[in-house]
Amino acid sequence: ATSLDDSSSGKKFASYTVFKGKAALSVHPILPSFSKLESGGARVSRNGSVMLTFFPAVGQRKYDYTKKQLFALSPTEVGSLISLGPAESCEFFHDPSMKSSHEGQVKKSLSLTPLGSDSGYFVNLTVLNNVQKTTDRLSVPITKGEFAVLRTTLSYALPHIMGWDQALTNHHPAPQAS
Amino acid sequence: ATSLDDSSSGKKFASYTVFKGKAALSVHPILPSFSKLESGGARVSRNGSVMLTFFPAVGQRKYDYTKKQLFALSPTEVGSLISLGPAESCEFFHDPSMKSSHEGQVKKSLSLTPLGSDSGYFVNLTVLNNVQKTTDRLSVPITKGEFAVLRTTLSYALPHIMGWDQALTNHHPAPQAS
Amino acid sequence: ATSLDDSSSGKKFASYTVFKGKAALSVHPILPSFSKLESGGARVSRNGSVMLTFFPAVGQRKYDYTKKQLFALSPTEVGSLISLGPAESCEFFHDPSMKSSHEGQVKKSLSLTPLGSDSGYFVNLTVLNNVQKTTDRLSVPITKGEFAVLRTTLSYALPHIMGWDQALTNHHPAPQAS
Amino acid sequence: ATSLDDSSSGKKFASYTVFKGKAALSVHPILPSFSKLESGGARVSRNGSVMLTFFPAVGQRKYDYTKKQLFALSPTEVGSLISLGPAESCEFFHDPSMKSSHEGQVKKSLSLTPLGSDSGYFVNLTVLNNVQKTTDRLSVPITKGEFAVLRTTLSYALPHIMGWDQALTNHHPAPQAS
Repeated sequence: ATSLDDSSSGKKFASYTVFKGKAALSVHPILPSFSKLESGGARVSRNGSVMLTFFPAVGQRKYDYTKKQLFALSPTEVGSLISLGPAESCEFFHDPSMKSSHEGQVKKSLSLTPLGSDSGYFVNLTVLNNVQKTTDRLSVPITKGEFAVLRTTLSYALPHIMGWDQALTNHHPAPQAS
Repeated sequence: ATSLDDSSSGKKFASYTVFKGKAALSVHPILPSFSKLESGGARVSRNGSVMLTFFPAVGQRKYDYTKKQLFALSPTEVGSLISLGPAESCEFFHDPSMKSSHEGQVKKSLSLTPLGSDSGYFVNLTVLNNVQKTTDRLSVPITKGEFAVLRTTLSYALPHIMGWDQALTNHHPAPQAS
Repeated sequence: ATSLDDSSSGKKFASYTVFKGKAALSVHPILPSFSKLESGGARVSRNGSVMLTFFPAVGQRKYDYTKKQLFALSPTEVGSLISLGPAESCEFFHDPSMKSSHEGQVKKSLSLTPLGSDSGYFVNLTVLNNVQKTTDRLSVPITKGEFAVLRTTLSYALPHIMGWDQALTNHHPAPQAS
Repeated sequence: ATSLDDSSSGKKFASYTVFKGKAALSVHPILPSFSKLESGGARVSRNGSVMLTFFPAVGQRKYDYTKKQLFALSPTEVGSLISLGPAESCEFFHDPSMKSSHEGQVKKSLSLTPLGSDSGYFVNLTVLNNVQKTTDRLSVPITKGEFAVLRTTLSYALPHIMGWDQALTNHHPAPQAS
């Protein structure tokens, strides 16, 4: 029984990655955290997210993973992305050090802009570092089919990163006749 | 084995909350109830719902949880909400004491009206108390992205609050060769 | 362990029912059947379906369950129903005795026709019995919100009545390092 | 306990098949592969796919299964298919021996072209064998309802063939109070 528990507790990792000329974009989901209640149940204490990871290209089909840049989409940002119309744009701004003494040192912005004629989007990440005086720009064009994969997997992921799949699981399979 | 049962029987809670200037709106799903059949199976005896909870703001980013107002959406009301077009409105009327001697004392109405130009909705709750001669009005504007989160999580929740996920689970993983 | 098996093997039942002036319509899913393979696995041997049950009204909010009429939607008919546009109609014809000596004795037809101005559908069942020389007609108007419940629950049910949920379940939670 | 493990480890198979005048088309999902990590978890090492199998007709309702032709859709190709507009076409090219010494010997192309007036698609497979100097063409018309079944089951399958369902499963049902 012990080995079964070990194997069943093993975390699984899955992502969706597109490799393009100037950069690659990898997307993976992050689970929410729960905190235990006195009743014996549990409540979501921190929502999960959908993490976008950008890698710059350093040659043909070669990417530098040490220069990766991250952007974590909140549930509401995931909602904005999956409801984006073919001709619409969206943009999100993050400060990784918000509400700390480092607030404002690094500013990140992620935008999706249409490629034109119902054919996909440019996904652009800009990271402005006011301390190192650097600006990183990474841009990945995604096709309509690739965006459909993102929209479908992110729609699937959304209730899970918010813990709704667990709140909607019946832990008592059948009422007991006693 | 006992502790595993205890932990697996712990109920999980998850919600989606938006905090706005005059009020906050929190949404969480409620599971259906089953009653046991003589055959050993079970049948849905009461559908679940999606509960909306409104809290008035009493200062900047401060909300008074003691003044909360509730509105429980039935499966059909959830269907109306998730199929709402960008320029459409909907309104639901509830009497918490329907078919009791207190019928008509309290009247609740929930409406969604478009914010204009495909940009979200106003979610308005009015609670009219004919005994206390009071009227509570709570209004929360939700963005297009926030509505996409609601539509996606409510679409996910709908089969679960109706018990279809459990009716569609195969309890016999594989036929036995005997 | 025995009692756990018993409770987990209990079949669950769930449906969606709308009660209208002249008739009621109840919808519930039916699971597919699997047959065992020599490899130890199993294959879908018969697809499930979505069963529609119509009851005529015999007074105000009273329905005669002994006069019920059934119509089982195949996966492809479910596909037609969930992809129905607001102004479109569809019609399906069934012979419950097809390919038997009673073929042609009973003919059933189910149609959905728009109520007009994007507001729902009439669901009409006609049962023509050539032996008893009778024709039963049952008609239930469903609102846009009720149709959204049907479309959402039937879209959820479709992969399940075809057994895809089970084919897509990983029965080996993690590879073993041995 | 041993027999339960055996039965629960049995693989399940499900598909969706349409039989038409000149050929039949069967569609089934293929699970992803995971490789074990040192941490005890696992990572998707190869995405799953959606396999299309075409069989030519050799008489009325008779199909020659020995002459079947296969085409495996990648996640991105599944995305293209499920986001196809009613009047749009798509085409995919595969070389089963890509990056081997046999590259270019066999070329497969799959296309979906609209049947016209929002009524479905032709699904066409062409297999060009440069060694045997043969060209196989198989074409299956699918109705709007059949395409809705494909779109719904493929949208359901997509997160599963990419392993996202497993990455989004919480393997620790509740935090332990210790």
